[in-house]
Amino acid sequence: MSDSFLPVKRKKGLSVRMASLAGGGRMNYSTRVAEELSRARAKEGDMVQVRSKGGERTGVLMPHHEFSDPDVLVLKLKSGYNLGVRLEEGASVKVVSKGEKKERHPRHQRSSEGARKIAVIGTGGTIASYVDYRTGAVHPALSAEDLMATVPEISDLCQIDAKVLFSIFSENMRVEHWQRIAEATADRLSSGDEGCIVPHGTDTMGYTSAALSFMLDELPRSVVLVGAQRSSDRPSSDAYGNLLAATRFCLEADAAEVFVLMHAGISDTSASVHRGTRVRKMHTSRRDAFQSINSSPVAKVDFEKGIEILSSIKPKSSSKVNLRTAMEVKVSLIQFYPGMSTRSFGSLAKDDRGIVIAGTGLGHVSADLIKEIRKAIAGGTTVVMCSQCLHGRVNLNVYDTGRDLLAAGVIPGEDMLPETAYIKLMWALANTSSEKELRSTMITDLRGELSQRREIDD
Amino acid sequence: MSDSFLPVKRKKGLSVRMASLAGGGRMNYSTRVAEELSRARAKEGDMVQVRSKGGERTGVLMPHHEFSDPDVLVLKLKSGYNLGVRLEEGASVKVVSKGEKKERHPRHQRSSEGARKIAVIGTGGTIASYVDYRTGAVHPALSAEDLMATVPEISDLCQIDAKVLFSIFSENMRVEHWQRIAEATADRLSSGDEGCIVPHGTDTMGYTSAALSFMLDELPRSVVLVGAQRSSDRPSSDAYGNLLAATRFCLEADAAEVFVLMHAGISDTSASVHRGTRVRKMHTSRRDAFQSINSSPVAKVDFEKGIEILSSIKPKSSSKVNLRTAMEVKVSLIQFYPGMSTRSFGSLAKDDRGIVIAGTGLGHVSADLIKEIRKAIAGGTTVVMCSQCLHGRVNLNVYDTGRDLLAAGVIPGEDMLPETAYIKLMWALANTSSEKELRSTMITDLRGELSQRREIDD
Repeated sequence: MSDSFLPVKRKKGLSVRMASLAGGGRMNYSTRVAEELSRARAKEGDMVQVRSKGGERTGVLMPHHEFSDPDVLVLKLKSGYNLGVRLEEGASVKVVSKGEKKERHPRHQRSSEGARKIAVIGTGGTIASYVDYRTGAVHPALSAEDLMATVPEISDLCQIDAKVLFSIFSENMRVEHWQRIAEATADRLSSGDEGCIVPHGTDTMGYTSAALSFMLDELPRSVVLVGAQRSSDRPSSDAYGNLLAATRFCLEADAAEVFVLMHAGISDTSASVHRGTRVRKMHTSRRDAFQSINSSPVAKVDFEKGIEILSSIKPKSSSKVNLRTAMEVKVSLIQFYPGMSTRSFGSLAKDDRGIVIAGTGLGHVSADLIKEIRKAIAGGTTVVMCSQCLHGRVNLNVYDTGRDLLAAGVIPGEDMLPETAYIKLMWALANTSSEKELRSTMITDLRGELSQRREIDD
Repeated sequence: MSDSFLPVKRKKGLSVRMASLAGGGRMNYSTRVAEELSRARAKEGDMVQVRSKGGERTGVLMPHHEFSDPDVLVLKLKSGYNLGVRLEEGASVKVVSKGEKKERHPRHQRSSEGARKIAVIGTGGTIASYVDYRTGAVHPALSAEDLMATVPEISDLCQIDAKVLFSIFSENMRVEHWQRIAEATADRLSSGDEGCIVPHGTDTMGYTSAALSFMLDELPRSVVLVGAQRSSDRPSSDAYGNLLAATRFCLEADAAEVFVLMHAGISDTSASVHRGTRVRKMHTSRRDAFQSINSSPVAKVDFEKGIEILSSIKPKSSSKVNLRTAMEVKVSLIQFYPGMSTRSFGSLAKDDRGIVIAGTGLGHVSADLIKEIRKAIAGGTTVVMCSQCLHGRVNLNVYDTGRDLLAAGVIPGEDMLPETAYIKLMWALANTSSEKELRSTMITDLRGELSQRREIDD
C-alpha cells in the first residue's frame, strides 16, 4: 500500500465463528468442509456441484483466502460471477469435471499484447476488505491487485494497472483526498487507459463522485467509482459483480463521465450506473442502497445480458483532462428545521464563504432565518437553497417565503442534491473570478447535476 | 380567524390569467364559461356532463368561489369527490338532470341529533388557501368552516366543530405552535370528539406530527394531520380528497394515534395514512410527496372502496389524554459531510443540551469529529446518531468508527428518522429526570418511531 492517512480500520465480523482449522493442506476451511472436499477429491479449479440448503449450484471451485469464512466455498458460475456457498452440516460436494491447473501468475501476460488497459485506483472501504473470521476484524486488501485477483476473468478482458492510492474508510475523506484521486485518474487517462475504476467506501462515495465530476473537466473516458456493502469474502458480497461490471462498462460503453456503479437490486443479477452528480446513498445496508435522484441511472449492466444505456451520456473522445482541483473549504451544508437556532447560522456565516441550505418543501426557511440570510449575503457569503425533500425542484417563485429569499440574493439550487450543491459551491467559489460568474456557474448545468426548469403542470 | 402569528402569506398563482368577468349573475367565471353555462341552462346543483380535452365527465355542478379559476368548473363525482374541469375553447356542457335546490344553511342541523363530532383545528398552509386569480395571491381560507364547506358531504357523515387556531405557513412553526395544537386537540378529544383533523402546511408537517405524537400520551382517538400540495380551488387540488378521507378514517378506523394523511399517488384515487413519527416529505411538489420511511403506511383510504388497514394500530379507548408538552429547545439537528468544520460543531455543543447527527452510512462521522463529540458528551451534551441515508438502521457495532462513537457515549438512533430523533430528543430532555432514564427513553419505542433490532442477515 503506497501510504495511509489513518490507521488501518477494523470491522467486526457479523457472523464470527471460531473455526477449527483443517489438519491437512487446505487453508483454514473448517474441519467439516475440509473433510467433505477431501472425500469428494475436489481441488481448486475443478468444476463442482454443491448441494446445500440453498439448493444445487455448479461452478468452478475458487481459491480460499486466508481470511475467508471457513464454512464457505466460493464458486465461479458460468456467468463469470462468483458465488459464496455456505456448506452447512449435511451439504455435499461432487466433482463434475477436473479443472486444468490455471496458471495464476503472471496474469497480465495472458492478455494479448495490444490489450486495452484499465486503471484501478484503490482508496479503501468495504470493497477492499477481508473479514478475518478468527478475530472478527476487517483488513483492507493488501493491494488493489489482490482485489482484482478475486475476479480473474477481468484479466481476460483487458490489462489491469492497479494501485492503492491510500486506504481509508470514506467517512474520513477530505478535500485533499478528492484532489489526489482526481490527479491519479487524470494521469492514467492521459496515459491512454481506457477507463479508471476507483474502489471506494460507500459512506461518502456520492460526495467523492460529485467532487471528481467537477474537478475532471474535458474527461476523455470514464471514471467509475465502485463499492461494496458486503466485504469481498462474504458469501453475499457485491464486490465481484460490481468490479466486473465496472470493467465491462469502461470497455464497452461509449461514455466519458464520472459514475458510481453499484448493485441495482438486492439479488446479484445487475448493477446500475449512476451519474456522479445525481447519486445518493439511500439505505444504510442494502446492496442497492445507491439511487439516482431526480434522474434515472444512465445505464444498467445486466450480469448475463450486458450493458443497456438508459440516457444520453457524453461520449469518449481524445481530449486531454483539464484538471481543476481547487476547492474553497469554507463552505457549509445545513438542513433547516423548525426550532433551528438562527444564532448558530449567524456564526457559520461569519466564517464561511458559502452555505448550502436544505430548506423545507420548495426551498423554504423560517422568517427569522431569512433575516440572518440577508445579513450573511450582505456580508459576502454565497447562499444556495436546495430542498431536504431531495426529490423534486426548489421553486422560490411560488410563496412569499421564496420570493423573500430570492430578494435577499439566495441562489436557487434547482433540482440539485444538497450534497452535490455543497461540492459544486466549494468548486465554484475556487474556480470563478466574479460574483456574476459564480451565480451563473451555480445555476448552469455543467456535469448533469441539474436540469433545465420546465413548466410545472397542474 | 382567532389569531395570527405572522402576516397573511401570499402565494403567486402558477397559471394566473386575467379573466373578463361574465356580465351576468354568475360570479367571476370567464365570459366563455359563463356563456356556455347559460347556453346549457346549467345551474349549481344540476347533474351535468362536460366534454373537454380531458374527456367526458359527469357530476353535480358545484358552487364557484370568489377566488376560483374563472375557466374551471368543479364537479362532484358519484364517488363524492370533487373534480376541477378546465373548460377550454370548444368544450361543452350538457345538463343531465336538474338538481334539487340544496339547502346549504344551516348545514349542521342536517346531521342527526346524536351524530358523532369531528374537530377540525386549522393551522394554515396550502390546504386552507385560495388563489385569487385576479391578483395571483393566495389567501388563507377565511375560516376552517369555509374549508370544510368545500366538502359538504362531510356534514352527512358527522358534525364538524371547526376552528382556526392560527394560520401560518408551516416553515414558521415553532415549539409553541406544536404545544398549542397539542392542547387544542387534547381539549377536543377530552370533550368526546371522535377525532381531530389538523389542516397543516406540508413543509414541516412531519416535524409537527412527530411532536404531537410524543406530546399526546394515552391518546383515546386519532389526530390526523392533512395537507395539500395544490391549493383547494385548483382543478388538481388534493385538498378535498384528503379532508374527506381523514374524516372517514377518524370515524371508521379503530385507531388512536397521530397520523399524517396525504395522497397515495399522483392520481386522485386514494390516500395513505402514515404514522406521525415515520413520515417524511420526500418530494417538493408531487401530491404523493409524503412517504413512510422504515415502515409501511398504517392504512390506505381508497376513495371508492374505503379503508384498508395495513399494520397494527393502537385502538380507540376511553383514556384521558396525558398532555406532556414540555420541550427542551436547546437541541440541534446536523448532517455530517466530508469537509465539515469541527469548530462549528464545537460551538453548537457549547450551547446545546442535545445534538442529533445524521451520519453517513451505518452512522459514521470522521475521526476528527469523534474527538469533538467526545468532548461534547463529557460536557453534558446528549448526542444521538442517525443516518442521512434515511432508509435502514444505524449500527455502531460493525466498524471501528461506530465503536468509537459508542465508547464516547453516543446514543444510537436505531431506525428513527433524523427529524423524529430531533423531536424526540427535545421531548425526552424535558420529560426525563436522569441521564439513565433519558438514554433508555431514546432507545425505547414509544410511538412507533423505532423498531426492535433484528439479526442482520447476510
